[in-house]
Formats: sequence, C-alpha cells, structure tokens
Amino acid sequence: MPRLVLHPDRLFPADPATRAIARELYALVAKAPIISPHGHTDPEWFATDAPWANATELLLAPDHYLFRMLYSQGVSLDALGVPRRGGALPDTDPRAAWRTFAAHWHLFAGTPSAMWLGHVFAEVFGLTETLNEASADHYYDAIGAALASPAFRPRALFERFNIELLATTEGAADDLVHHQAIRASGWQGNVVTTYRPDSVIDPEHDSFARDMARFAELSGEDVTTWSGYLAAHRRRRADFRAMGATATDHGFLTPQTANLSRAECEALFAKVIGGQADAAQAELFRAQMLTEMARMSLDDGMTMQIHPGATRNHNARLFASHGRDKGADIPRATEFVEALRPMLDLFGNEPALKVILFTLDETTYARELAPLAGHYPCLKLGPAWWFHDSPEGMRRFREMTTETAGFYNTVGFNDDTRAFLSIPARHDVARRVDCGFLARLVAEHRLADWEAAELIEELTTGLVRRAYGLPVPAARQAVPA
Amino acid sequence: MPRLVLHPDRLFPADPATRAIARELYALVAKAPIISPHGHTDPEWFATDAPWANATELLLAPDHYLFRMLYSQGVSLDALGVPRRGGALPDTDPRAAWRTFAAHWHLFAGTPSAMWLGHVFAEVFGLTETLNEASADHYYDAIGAALASPAFRPRALFERFNIELLATTEGAADDLVHHQAIRASGWQGNVVTTYRPDSVIDPEHDSFARDMARFAELSGEDVTTWSGYLAAHRRRRADFRAMGATATDHGFLTPQTANLSRAECEALFAKVIGGQADAAQAELFRAQMLTEMARMSLDDGMTMQIHPGATRNHNARLFASHGRDKGADIPRATEFVEALRPMLDLFGNEPALKVILFTLDETTYARELAPLAGHYPCLKLGPAWWFHDSPEGMRRFREMTTETAGFYNTVGFNDDTRAFLSIPARHDVARRVDCGFLARLVAEHRLADWEAAELIEELTTGLVRRAYGLPVPAARQAVPA
Amino acid sequence: MPRLVLHPDRLFPADPATRAIARELYALVAKAPIISPHGHTDPEWFATDAPWANATELLLAPDHYLFRMLYSQGVSLDALGVPRRGGALPDTDPRAAWRTFAAHWHLFAGTPSAMWLGHVFAEVFGLTETLNEASADHYYDAIGAALASPAFRPRALFERFNIELLATTEGAADDLVHHQAIRASGWQGNVVTTYRPDSVIDPEHDSFARDMARFAELSGEDVTTWSGYLAAHRRRRADFRAMGATATDHGFLTPQTANLSRAECEALFAKVIGGQADAAQAELFRAQMLTEMARMSLDDGMTMQIHPGATRNHNARLFASHGRDKGADIPRATEFVEALRPMLDLFGNEPALKVILFTLDETTYARELAPLAGHYPCLKLGPAWWFHDSPEGMRRFREMTTETAGFYNTVGFNDDTRAFLSIPARHDVARRVDCGFLARLVAEHRLADWEAAELIEELTTGLVRRAYGLPVPAARQAVPA
Repeated sequence: MPRLVLHPDRLFPADPATRAIARELYALVAKAPIISPHGHTDPEWFATDAPWANATELLLAPDHYLFRMLYSQGVSLDALGVPRRGGALPDTDPRAAWRTFAAHWHLFAGTPSAMWLGHVFAEVFGLTETLNEASADHYYDAIGAALASPAFRPRALFERFNIELLATTEGAADDLVHHQAIRASGWQGNVVTTYRPDSVIDPEHDSFARDMARFAELSGEDVTTWSGYLAAHRRRRADFRAMGATATDHGFLTPQTANLSRAECEALFAKVIGGQADAAQAELFRAQMLTEMARMSLDDGMTMQIHPGATRNHNARLFASHGRDKGADIPRATEFVEALRPMLDLFGNEPALKVILFTLDETTYARELAPLAGHYPCLKLGPAWWFHDSPEGMRRFREMTTETAGFYNTVGFNDDTRAFLSIPARHDVARRVDCGFLARLVAEHRLADWEAAELIEELTTGLVRRAYGLPVPAARQAVPA
Repeated sequence: MPRLVLHPDRLFPADPATRAIARELYALVAKAPIISPHGHTDPEWFATDAPWANATELLLAPDHYLFRMLYSQGVSLDALGVPRRGGALPDTDPRAAWRTFAAHWHLFAGTPSAMWLGHVFAEVFGLTETLNEASADHYYDAIGAALASPAFRPRALFERFNIELLATTEGAADDLVHHQAIRASGWQGNVVTTYRPDSVIDPEHDSFARDMARFAELSGEDVTTWSGYLAAHRRRRADFRAMGATATDHGFLTPQTANLSRAECEALFAKVIGGQADAAQAELFRAQMLTEMARMSLDDGMTMQIHPGATRNHNARLFASHGRDKGADIPRATEFVEALRPMLDLFGNEPALKVILFTLDETTYARELAPLAGHYPCLKLGPAWWFHDSPEGMRRFREMTTETAGFYNTVGFNDDTRAFLSIPARHDVARRVDCGFLARLVAEHRLADWEAAELIEELTTGLVRRAYGLPVPAARQAVPA
Repeated sequence: MPRLVLHPDRLFPADPATRAIARELYALVAKAPIISPHGHTDPEWFATDAPWANATELLLAPDHYLFRMLYSQGVSLDALGVPRRGGALPDTDPRAAWRTFAAHWHLFAGTPSAMWLGHVFAEVFGLTETLNEASADHYYDAIGAALASPAFRPRALFERFNIELLATTEGAADDLVHHQAIRASGWQGNVVTTYRPDSVIDPEHDSFARDMARFAELSGEDVTTWSGYLAAHRRRRADFRAMGATATDHGFLTPQTANLSRAECEALFAKVIGGQADAAQAELFRAQMLTEMARMSLDDGMTMQIHPGATRNHNARLFASHGRDKGADIPRATEFVEALRPMLDLFGNEPALKVILFTLDETTYARELAPLAGHYPCLKLGPAWWFHDSPEGMRRFREMTTETAGFYNTVGFNDDTRAFLSIPARHDVARRVDCGFLARLVAEHRLADWEAAELIEELTTGLVRRAYGLPVPAARQAVPA
C-alpha cells in the first residue's frame, strides 16, 4: 500500500464506513477560510512583505519542534543554524544546516512535524519526493528559488492560504509599529495583535525591569503605583484593541489566581516594584494580576487566554548559550480547581466574560477542565496545545472533554505557531481529526449525520468566531438566558 | 447514513467483524434484569406511588447533568425551574423552562445526557422526533399526558423497567419512613436503602450539628462520647439493614484513612463534638471514621463504598443561592496508595471485607487502583463514575484496569442516578460498552468467544450480586482459599 | 468465531486493511532474535543447567503477576506454594497448588498473564486445551514430564528461544559466581549481568548494612569514606563489565537527583554510614548517588536505567510473613521535571551519556517524559513497564510518546521478567502491538509502508542494540553532530 504524499484520506479512521462519513464531513470544511486567533508569526513579515531568505532561515532555524528533535539525537544547534542568545548566527552555512536536517528527517516519522512539513513541501513548494541526504540540495534550491519569487512573499502566501484572520502576539512593551505599518499600507489582510503582558506582570521574567520601563513610556502612566500600573494596562489594552486585538494571553507556570484587597495589592505591588518580592510574592502577584486581567476583560470585552504549565528554559546551559524558546520547555502537572477559585468567586458566573483555558497536562481534561467549563459561564476550553497539538493529542482532547463539556464549550482550533507556512497544514490536520472523531460518533450511532455536519462547521469556524468576538455570519448562537 | 433513534447497533464498534461479535454478546444480556445497587432515587416515589407532575419537574429541574450544561452557556437556573436553596421554586412557568431547555438541546450532542434522555424519550414516551424549539410543546404535552396515566406511576415504571433491585441512599439522620412505607404497602418491588453517614461524620458538613441531634434521637445513644457515637452507628446500620441495606457509602474529598489509638480517638472526638476541630482534625476524624466503618463492615457484613475526590459546591455564589448538588462539584486529583494504607494495614488481608473504590481521577485507574485491587483481598473497583459514566469513560475504565485487576475485581455497573426514568438507558449503555470492549478482545484473539459470553453475564449480573451480597443464582463463584 | 490458541492474527487491529498491513510488518520480525537487555532471570539456571522441578515451582510460585491475582480473590499464598520469608516452602503439595491455580485460571481473562502463559503452554509444552480444574492434572503431568527431559533444560530452551542476549540483574554485593561459571563452562549462550546497586545506595533498604559489608569485601575498598565508597562502585562496575554488563539499573521511589558539593557529599555520607540519616537525608543520598552513577556512566560508557515510582512492600502483614516481591508493590504518582534537573544541569547535554527512563505513572508519558527525551541528548524512554507491559499499556505508550519524542528516542522492548519461559511470549506481544500501531499509522496515511518496515526493524532489534551498547549490524545509525 504505497503512500501518496498527502493522501486524500490521511488521518481518517481506517474502517471503511467510518472513513466514508469522515470524507463527507471533511468536504464541508476542506476549503473553509482559516481563522487563526492565536499564534506567534512575526507581524514584520506582513508589514514589509520582504522575501524570506532560504529554507534554513525560514523553516528550520526558528522551529523549535524541529531542532529539539535533532538536538535530542546529538546534533548541535550550531550545526542547524539556530541563532545564539542575542541573535548572532552560528558560523554554519545555511545549506550545510539544511543537509544535516535532511539527513535526520527519518527521526520525525510519526510526528506532527513530519505531517506539517510534508504538507508545506508538497502544497506550498510542490516537492513530493522523500527528503533525505540525497534530495537535500534539490529541496534547498527549489525552496530558495520559490522564495525569491513574488508569489512566495508573506502577503501573497497569506492570500493564497485563504486566511480570514491572523492574530499575532505582542508584549505589553511592544510599540505595535508593524501592526501600524500593516494598517497604513492599505493591504487588506486581516492581521491583528494580542495583548500578552507576561513580561510586565511576572517579576521573575528576565525582561521585567526593561519592559516595565518601556511599558511606562508607551502608556504614559506612572507604573510605580498600583493604580498607575493598572491604568497602564488599561491604556495598552486600548492600544492593542486599536490594532485589532480581541484577546489577551497569559502564560505562567501555574493558573493560580488571587483575590486580594486593595490595601494588600498596594503592599504587594510595592514589594514587586521595589525588586523585593520573593518567589511566593511573585507567584501571588501573578495570581492577582490574572484576576485583574479578568476584571479588565469584563470591562473591555477582550477574551482572556490562559496558557499555564510550561517549565520554561529547563536546560540551564542551553538557556545561557541560546536563550528562550529553544525546545527546552517542559510541561508540568497543573492544578486548576483551587487555582482558579479566587477569580471564579468574583467573575465565574458572568456570561459576558470569556476565559479560555489551555493545558499541557492532559490529566486535567476530564478531571478538572471539562467539569469546570461544563459549569461556569465564563470558562471555555482551548484546543489541544503544543505537544498535544497532534492527531493523537487532538483525539484525546475530544474523547476526554466532549462528554462533560460538550462541543459548545470549546473554541475551535488554534495553530499557535510561528511557522507561517505550516498554518494551512495545521488547520487541515485539526479539521481531519475532528472529522474522524465525529465520524466515529456517527458510525456508532451516537450522533446523527446532520448533527455531525452542523458540528464540523462549528468546530471549524463557528466556535472560534464567537469565542474571540469575531464577526459571526448568520448562524445559530447560544440563546441568551 | 441517517441515524435511527436508538439504532440497534448504537455504541458498538464500527468494524463489521467486531460489531457482529458485540451484537451476539449483547443478545445475551439485553433483557437481563436491572440490578441497581447504588443510586439516589427518592424512596418517597415508591412509597406513595404519586404521579409526577410534568416534564420539567421530573426530567429537567432535578438533573444537574442537564442544567449545568445550560448554565455554562449563560442560561440561568431560574429560567430552568431549578429550585432555590430551601426548595422555593423560581417564578418560571414549567412549560417555559422546558422550551428553554429544548432550544438548547444541541448543546448535548456527543454527551451521555443526550443518549440517556434520547432513550427515555423514545423508549418510555415513544417520542422520536428531534427535540428543539419547534417540538418543545409537543414533548411537554405528550410527557405530561403520559405522566397522568397509571402506567407512568413510579411503581408501574419500576416493574416495566424489569428492576430486580434498586438501592437508594439515605443519611444517618434519616428515619427511613419511606422505606418502611414501601415494605408496609405489600408492593413487591425490591427497593432497599444504603447507609450514608457523611453528615454525621464530617464536622465540616453544613448539616453536621442538626444531623447529629437527629442521629442521637434515632439511635437512642449518647453521641457525645466516642463509645456512644460508635454505638449509634452500629444501631443505625442495623436499622438500615432492616430496610434491606447491604452497603454503606462514604463520600469525602479524599480517601484518607487513619489508625488511631482509642485514647487518640476519644481526644479527637471531644474536639469534634465540642465544635473545636480545625481543618486538619476534621480530616483526621473523617479518616479514622472510614477505618471504623471498615471495622463495622467486617462485623456486620455490609459492603463499603468509598466515593472520594469531588470538590463539592465549588461555585460559592451559586451555593449561596441554590444550595448543594447544582452541577458545581469539580473533581480533584486523588491519591489512594498512602491514603488507604492505615485501613489496609488493619483489614486489607480480610477476604470477608468488601471495600469498593470509586474515583473521579482516571489517572489512578492503572497507576493505583488496579494494582491495589489486583492484590488486596478486601478491595474491589467500582465502575466509571459520574463524569466518567459515559461511553468513552467506561471504555477507558476497562482499558486501564482490566490488564492488572482483571474483570473479577470489578463489581458491574452502578447507575448512581437520581433520574429514575434514565435507569434502563444507563444500564443499556453500560452493557453495550462492555459488549464492545469484549468484542474487541475477541476480534483481536485475546479472549475466546465463550470466555466473552461468560464475562458479559458476570459484568451484567454476576459481579454486582457478589459484590453487594445479593442473592446469587447458581453460577461460578470465586473458589475459597 | 472460535479462537485458535495462538491465532496468527492475535493482537492485530480488527479492521481488515489495517490487519493486512500489520501482518506484513510482523512477517519482517517474527523470527528476529530475542534481545533481552533487562530482566530478572536467575543466572544459576544457565550456570548449572539443572532441570526445573515442576510446573508449580517453575511457573506459579515465583510469578507475582499470577499469585497476586489469586491472592486478591482470597486465595492464600500458602495454598499456592509461594515461599515464606527466608525461603521456607509452605506445607502444600505442588500438585495441589497447581490445581488451585488451574481452578482460578478464569480470573486472568483479558490480562497479559493469560496471553503469556497461554503462549508458554502452547508453544513450549504443546498444551492447547483450556486450563481448568479438569485439565489441571494433565497440565501438571505433561509439564513435569517435559521438564525432566534434556530439551527443557535452561540452556536448551535458551537456544530454542533464539536469544541473542539475555541480561540478568545482580546487586552490588553479588559475587557474580554464576556468571563466572557460565563463562567458564564454554557454553556459548550470551548471558550478561547488570549492575543494580540499590541495596548499597539506599540507607533504608532492609539489606543495607549486610550488603555494605559484602560490598567492601568484594571491592577491597574502604567504603566508610566517601571517596572509598565511590571507588568501590567504580571497582564493582568494572567487575560487572567483565561479566558482560553494559548497563546499570536503579529503582527508588522517586527519580530525584542532586548536585551537592564534595563537602556536602562527605557530610551526608558520614550520616549515612553512621546510620544516622533521617528520611530526608536518605532521599538526598539516593538523589546524589543517581548523579554519581550518571557521572560514572559518562566515564565507563555503561547505560543507566532508572526505574522509579514503585511503593515497595505496601502490604505490611504480607511483607512480615513473606518478604519482598510478593505482588504488593503499588505505583505512585511520579514527578520527573524537577527531580531530574540537578543531574541534567550537569550531564543533560552529553550525547555520550545514555540514561533510560522508565515510569509506572503513565500521565508522565506525554507530559514530562516525551518532552524531556525529545530534547535532552542523554535521555531515552524505556518501554511500557510492569503493570503497563501489556497490549493496552504498550499502545498507550506509543500513542502518548511518539508524537513528541519520535521512535528514535525509545529503546525497543524490555521483558523485565524472572519468568524465563515467558520471554518469547513477551517479545512476541511487543512486536505484535508495535506492528499494530505502525499499521494504523500506515492505514491512516501518516507513515509510508517503507517507513513502517524500517521502523519495525528498529523497534525490534536496532534501537535496543544502540541503547545498550550492543554490537550493531550494518544499519542506519544517528548521524553525529
């Protein structure tokens, strides 16, 4: 049974009856526009529309999914052209780096990276032979040639990919100049920002002091007082909304929230701003700020995303040499039930608030998250995230959340990627896995075919639009109380 | 592939060979009597045999699986006719509440509630069209008309459902008047009680003081001394056994047990009865009492059920307005290995003791519970519970417990429900899922067909009878040592 | 659908297309040699080649998988011929014990024990009728007769089983006399040892004092000083390497590591050797010693295995009467991310170091272990272990680790058994489950058929050879950095 690259039935269950149902469902959404409400692409790409340089710089060096796997097998990051801390490139020829990557391509068998990149090779570049040492140069040259042509510039690909909306993520100390440039350019691509204030909320963040200074400057507020600090957040949230943001994002080790009195907040903030907060106080400050962010979301309508559970920069030596986001972030067990309680005590019953919970700890799907989202009006479940953004991971997400939370307390797919070219591939995988899951329910007579047809539209475009406050075409919405 | 409501193959695996085996297995147990050894139906129904009022009061307002989902989507409990704390009904017309429910029926796609209620609609009331806003009144009227007829009174349905035994659950402060009335009535339905003394064991229970007074009164013992308090439990356990009880039930946040000396028990009890126990002492008291209950079970032969892991009444605002059991109970990570050790040190090796463990933390299935039940003579595993009482949840239970604990350390199905009409539906789902699981083992040649046939009988009726000390027809029993 | 004993399609997925692929993959490895790099068979068997006595002593009394299940159902260990603490046999006729076992054989339905032992009965002894009370004597007699014949002596079976390598496990206080005898005998069977120094590293081990004395004697070092103690380990590691060892093994409750200064190590060791270490100090000493073992592995090239997470001897009464390894070891939740950090800070980036992590806590597969192994060059994932060494357990292992760690950060199969006769059965189960997993990926077009063919060879023989430093035939190896 030779495999077609991008076989039309890929990711559908093998049982013929189930596969036939999956195919029919997929046909309904295969060409639906891409809505990407959370990700990490670089807005500068769309602001300048400058061409990308080569396969290594575009596809390999920034993709921690790829180089972490090679690193785990003894390949150095230098050999792969990954920049060092501060951005200095190693003394490695990009073509040589690509060859090294190609020689290790077999390591990705069975991983989502193989599926995503195989899709990019075939669909974006028309490359369908097996990547290996022998074909490495051909790939490198073909990709390089394509990237030099106008059809492969960022905006052209954005349009070719049929992207309805793409959200990037910027810090509270970002001046949003690229988003302003996109808007000023007259280009019609819908690229929006997302407010991610981690570096001015987490006293232990390595950029805290620097970013607080910039945060003060950009907001024009006195961020050395508790009230001024909160005002600065409100100001910057408004700045971000002006650049299209409909959501905020928060990524700390835990989802701990707090509900302190104003006097306690002021005293805690004085510690933080004075650089005297110990680890417990830093945690309490982050916790209180999650609650403050929820309060502001209730005021300004921004959807709040919480991405907890990653132990960042676990490899101390690599962090020293190469800095953040180098494939050394490791998930940890995460507790939501008590952690969220202080915030839920205040705002849990507000249907107008939207808090989307993500997790790297799959044990919380059925045990904590689905029961919480299946009760609290403000809570929704984000899709399978990061290490779990994969066929098996997505399947587990549906199997472990649907029976308690239903489909309507979920929010569709997030690609959450900095790998722009892989966005169509990632959404395609999500649609196929959802089709397969729904097809199984239909084949087992747990769902009617027309219900599955309605649901696949919801999972692809309906839920994401409602969850992120995006324009919703005429379609069924939740009936208000 | 249009779906028949209640398709005869529902819940069976789609693979044709596997499905054929599942069908054959199901044929062996489809009509087996229902044995319901643990649940929360109201014995007053069977004592008075009064008709139920309407669809809203019978099916919607008491079912926290249903209203929690609507609540999560912004529908108020008042709009659904759910009683407030103290029992006052909201000022909502039951028909209007039903219409609101019907308009949100799509939220339940893929959930067990949809399957259970679809079964009730079709099998009990003959309603097979889709429930939605348009059909809401027709449903409401048809159900109302049926409920007014003798054939839909509680006892008539009990008989129609072919229930061999139905256990309710009463607190230690319950006078069992309804059970006495059932027995006095001459009706032959086998309705028994279960001893659930949580409210007189947990010093932090909101009814502790009130229920202790009633517990003293009903037992005639001096419950202010440790020995009198234990004697009161023994007395009430005997009262419950006189009303058919063969089991006790205990539901605390943790399964912690303890093994204190008599002097320590007396000192701790003095704190508890004096209202001076702090949180740690309250936990220690509950722990010691689990051990005492095991000791009494060894004396009087009652099977002991432990249902740990639910964070009760997580939503403080809703608890204030609406009280307990309003869909705001959230599971938490649960540890069994050290928690049970003190009790197991004393009684773990007693084959005459039966302790059935339930969990809301599925991570404990393969890691802790199956290894414990696969070793200790006194331990058995209860079926997938509450949020996990669902097709996927049951499948995970079998997949994660069978290989280490086998089938014979499990105890069949519990419906654990207060929704009387759904009992046949719930047992049917469990039987179908078990047939599907066994069919897969047969199709993969991991089990002989005749073994699967024996096992499906055990899983449906054999194991539950032995685990709960019910009369066992001639059948293979465990060979004594 | 009657079951053939040992049906040729057993354990393959039921879907016909998937099964056909699985069959083709299995054909590639069905007859591959057995490489068993980690297990607990007794080297004396191969040193003396003495015949085994009878079915009970060979198959039942030493197999805690078997007698724990019967014990859980109320059968005493005495009735099964299981030796008491100190080795005294109970006063039970071995044939009577076998009959008791046979009468309970149905308890194993759906367990790996049924599959393994069914394979032993059929393939090794030619017994294919159902084991039960009626056939018990026939089994007992047939097995007894076979064992008396030369063809069933340990060395003959070793050769018949096509074992390329078999590693046993010996403590640091073992004189390796049986391994010396094997080598001196001229027999060509490749039986090697493994260095497992738990009893001289764990101050809380019940043999610590006795084994430390022997450790001093065998190493000729002064083990009362920190430097002498470390030298003794280095000496004994060399002794073990001389008996073929390529690996060490470490089994503590947690995988905690530490990175203490030399002065701290000396002070801690003084406490330990003086018998004054409290529980926290004992834990810290074990943690530091895991780091020391990693350091020595970097020097001498031995692969390091870590088997954490078992609460040993949970049943105090049974431990008192029968001692260790009596089926009363219960897994516990295990944390790796912080526990391994001190060791990884030192050696995590060393591609020359090989540390194989095992777990009894499946929640760590996708959350902690795959992300760690998919990043750190020194880390590899051991196969599904102990309670999870089963078809469902192996399937979960692949489903939860492959997408993040790939296949190449795993190490093939370990049988980890003391049940010598079951070794072919266990490897066969692993191969079949891997074939089924790969077949599903091919059927879902997630893997090419030629990729699956390469991978099944790697999973069967390639990866294990590289992970344990065994001779590797010409085959693709990881390209060095």
